Amino acid sequence: MPAAFYLSPEIYDLDINGVLMKHWQCVTHVSAIPEVGDYVVFNYDRESAIIVRDKDGEIRGFANVCRHRGSRICESSGKAEGGMLICPYHAWAYSTDGSLAHARMMPRTLDKSTLGLKPLAVKVVQGLIFLSFADEPLSFDDCEANLNATLGAYDWAGAKIAFQSTISFSANWKLALENQVECYHCGPSHPEFSVVHGQSSGSEKKLAQMMNAKAEALGVDITITDQWAEKARPGYELSFSDRFPMSGENVCTASRDGAPLAPRMGKFAAGYDNGQTVAYVGVMNHFLCYGDYGAAFRYTPKSVNETELAVMWLVRGDAVEGKDYDLDELTWMWKVTAGADKRIVQENQIGVSSRFYTPGPYALPIEQKTARLSDWYLSALSKAISA
Amino acid sequence: MPAAFYLSPEIYDLDINGVLMKHWQCVTHVSAIPEVGDYVVFNYDRESAIIVRDKDGEIRGFANVCRHRGSRICESSGKAEGGMLICPYHAWAYSTDGSLAHARMMPRTLDKSTLGLKPLAVKVVQGLIFLSFADEPLSFDDCEANLNATLGAYDWAGAKIAFQSTISFSANWKLALENQVECYHCGPSHPEFSVVHGQSSGSEKKLAQMMNAKAEALGVDITITDQWAEKARPGYELSFSDRFPMSGENVCTASRDGAPLAPRMGKFAAGYDNGQTVAYVGVMNHFLCYGDYGAAFRYTPKSVNETELAVMWLVRGDAVEGKDYDLDELTWMWKVTAGADKRIVQENQIGVSSRFYTPGPYALPIEQKTARLSDWYLSALSKAISA
Amino acid sequence: MPAAFYLSPEIYDLDINGVLMKHWQCVTHVSAIPEVGDYVVFNYDRESAIIVRDKDGEIRGFANVCRHRGSRICESSGKAEGGMLICPYHAWAYSTDGSLAHARMMPRTLDKSTLGLKPLAVKVVQGLIFLSFADEPLSFDDCEANLNATLGAYDWAGAKIAFQSTISFSANWKLALENQVECYHCGPSHPEFSVVHGQSSGSEKKLAQMMNAKAEALGVDITITDQWAEKARPGYELSFSDRFPMSGENVCTASRDGAPLAPRMGKFAAGYDNGQTVAYVGVMNHFLCYGDYGAAFRYTPKSVNETELAVMWLVRGDAVEGKDYDLDELTWMWKVTAGADKRIVQENQIGVSSRFYTPGPYALPIEQKTARLSDWYLSALSKAISA
Repeated sequence: MPAAFYLSPEIYDLDINGVLMKHWQCVTHVSAIPEVGDYVVFNYDRESAIIVRDKDGEIRGFANVCRHRGSRICESSGKAEGGMLICPYHAWAYSTDGSLAHARMMPRTLDKSTLGLKPLAVKVVQGLIFLSFADEPLSFDDCEANLNATLGAYDWAGAKIAFQSTISFSANWKLALENQVECYHCGPSHPEFSVVHGQSSGSEKKLAQMMNAKAEALGVDITITDQWAEKARPGYELSFSDRFPMSGENVCTASRDGAPLAPRMGKFAAGYDNGQTVAYVGVMNHFLCYGDYGAAFRYTPKSVNETELAVMWLVRGDAVEGKDYDLDELTWMWKVTAGADKRIVQENQIGVSSRFYTPGPYALPIEQKTARLSDWYLSALSKAISA
Repeated sequence: MPAAFYLSPEIYDLDINGVLMKHWQCVTHVSAIPEVGDYVVFNYDRESAIIVRDKDGEIRGFANVCRHRGSRICESSGKAEGGMLICPYHAWAYSTDGSLAHARMMPRTLDKSTLGLKPLAVKVVQGLIFLSFADEPLSFDDCEANLNATLGAYDWAGAKIAFQSTISFSANWKLALENQVECYHCGPSHPEFSVVHGQSSGSEKKLAQMMNAKAEALGVDITITDQWAEKARPGYELSFSDRFPMSGENVCTASRDGAPLAPRMGKFAAGYDNGQTVAYVGVMNHFLCYGDYGAAFRYTPKSVNETELAVMWLVRGDAVEGKDYDLDELTWMWKVTAGADKRIVQENQIGVSSRFYTPGPYALPIEQKTARLSDWYLSALSKAISA
Repeated sequence: MPAAFYLSPEIYDLDINGVLMKHWQCVTHVSAIPEVGDYVVFNYDRESAIIVRDKDGEIRGFANVCRHRGSRICESSGKAEGGMLICPYHAWAYSTDGSLAHARMMPRTLDKSTLGLKPLAVKVVQGLIFLSFADEPLSFDDCEANLNATLGAYDWAGAKIAFQSTISFSANWKLALENQVECYHCGPSHPEFSVVHGQSSGSEKKLAQMMNAKAEALGVDITITDQWAEKARPGYELSFSDRFPMSGENVCTASRDGAPLAPRMGKFAAGYDNGQTVAYVGVMNHFLCYGDYGAAFRYTPKSVNETELAVMWLVRGDAVEGKDYDLDELTWMWKVTAGADKRIVQENQIGVSSRFYTPGPYALPIEQKTARLSDWYLSALSKAISA
């Protein structure tokens, strides 16, 4: 795309408000808030949300903004003491269902029913908690079906968070995504990845046949879908999934050498299929499933030239750190690979800032998804401007 | 107020130039520049001032800008060597009355009389030095009367600076002030303050009666005034004062437990009245008087979302540090309380940045001054825009 | 000049694009890239250039932007492995002549001849490498003649880089240059400089006569020129040179006490002339020649209020560090002097930001070049706006 799409603060504002706001973000996994009153705080652009487990066990989302003076109520994740979310400024207290329970020193005539926390749309699928800040978010139905059809085989609903980390890219979010959706760069840039993944290798086709046979033998049936980018149904969140083989018969997972890292999950309890499943929600969230662990990725724009990548590693719910898995080994591959992507994407940002930059040709078919991403984005931006 | 008033750089520029510039700031106390030639530098927005004690002992203020190339002349406080303020760039030398005394290598025809430092308005009341950068500042008369009627009882004119510090808030100046002017938040946010101050407590009325009786017994007569916000006379700087009791009979001052911290000041030489006096100059400066020490507060806007709070602690002029007072104990209360306010105000800034923020109801009467501050500000801004 | 010229981001953009882009910058000295394939990276505003020694020994410049996705290709200086400049992102490989040699996984129909690196104008004169990012840069002819007539006497073509450093000024580039081109400030601000330089001293004329006599005795004939500022020929890069005496008969070079620092260069092999030669290319580059060492200065604007000064010290090509010269002594004078200029210029930036700043009178003739710089700049800006 032309340079302005990566550099202009005006276009960035359109991106946030016109293109991205009605989409969904993956906030965390239900295992982060197992008890009634547990909550996490999710910050996105100028917004902050509280995602809390209510008295009935349901997970609810609210704007993290006090209805009195507008203070942020919760600074970071925690537990609602006495079932209350209490603003630290003047001590207004909200129930975990968002209603205003107590406002000290206010006149008795105050109509508390109009002063509850503003609710946000939340969906929980396969243990993942998704949130949208839009008044009328896109339908999540296609994504829900897709996540159940893919992540379901690995029982992510029964998983737990092993580790979380964030990494900040000094680059526009679109450059981060253009890098994310193609594996043309995997060869030169990700030697660690390339050793164990068969994706985009010469023998990918043969390896995929082996994967499919193994999966069939395990009784695993994963249906992939492509309702992504311009193929998304109007009014529906973008959805996508695919399957890729690992790089060989003995390569079970994304570790240094393909050796297993953690207890096998879901329908893979009996063995590995030497494959990998990937699923997307929108353009900012994607999920990688291996037989023994999962990795969830979320990109968050911070400014026109700063993007944060949050990575969450999942293992089977009953796995014990230090006994069933080693955290350093579990997280090695995607720490190394995300670090390399940060470097690449930042150099790309510097390059496109030049007056000498002109968009170049795509390497098709391997950069097909980058082309689709650009087409989708330009169409979405165009609609936002016309609206 | 709506979010734009806390977030918009355009409104911030209007604030500085249209609303704040004609007001007065408290720069320091005369004890900071006791000798002829002593000067302090005061930086405000894009301005810098030199406040110097001239040969005749008078305190004068000048724009800290050389009339040659425009360099800042004095980087920080100091003493005019040989009675001259010398620009470090090309060594133009100015007398402490601001006149250009010497400009090396300039043609003999140079009319030095037109090249003196630009003078700034300065007022000294009760030992406090006030400065305005405006060509036509507001009248200081009401403030002068008010300061004499309040601070005068504590003889601030005869005080000395015990300590000074600054703390930076990542928030708009109006959020800092909205917090400053109400004590609705004191209960939840300032437990250290609330232990020793009777303000906004259930027994405030009874405690005030005791305070007044004690003051009367001491022969102290402090007249309070309210010419603040919309009650200010047109063309006059906003002026305000009030009296509040401490939290009990044995609570003498704002210390950890109410025990005295320093030698008693002014008319309180004979004893404490277990009360506190507060005075305001404009909206950005306020002064707290206890029987044994004083604290002067000045808010300075740094950018649309950054505000600096400067605090100056005053003790009796003859008090000796280490002997008559312990600096850590003296400064403890207002360091702790200012630190808590910083956290509160910063969370408020984050909250009002959300698209979900809407202004909420005031808790009246305790938030009355916040309401008055907003009304005054909106009126002043409106006048600035119409002008 | 009025304050807006130092403060306005809009004017800064005009400066970069309308005034500065068609000029030349001194990137480095040929001794930095002696071997085929050696390259340096030069970053300027939003641009980055690769300057590489090609197979035929010629020095070429290219935009450091991959023709595929636009990534920066080289992050810092290095050597083209296998004669190739390889983009780290998708491994597109360019020859040192800029042509696209290999683009992996691209369709065979790709027309590689249209996808070479974009060439930039490069000139090598007296060992100095100059580069312009403009499509149609100013003619370098007058500068070439001037550099040969001045630096040539010191054989800079046969010199080598002894040291390089950069220093960042928090100030607009014009304030940095206004300081650079006048020596009115040398007395108050640069005592170290003033001890050994006769420039702007009372005995400058007498010292210059001695210098000229010594130079003649050495058979050195340096022709100075003034095609600078408004005296530049239309369409030609600004060119200037001058000669100044050191401060005394025994002051050979710019050291602490005038004592020699390094082996004598070029036509000064037989002795010192106790003088100094200065040459300018445009307004951003100037070169100081002493009998035993040289110093090259380049100012690079980084933002409206940030400017970088790069200094390169040159010695005779066969001089050996530690034996023929001591690096700390060699670099002392211009490290100290540049550090003082940084302080001065930063205070100037603070001063001109004040609403009380008004431009003052020039001290003529000693500030003549500052006046000429301002006139040239305003004229160039005016042309840029009309264009």
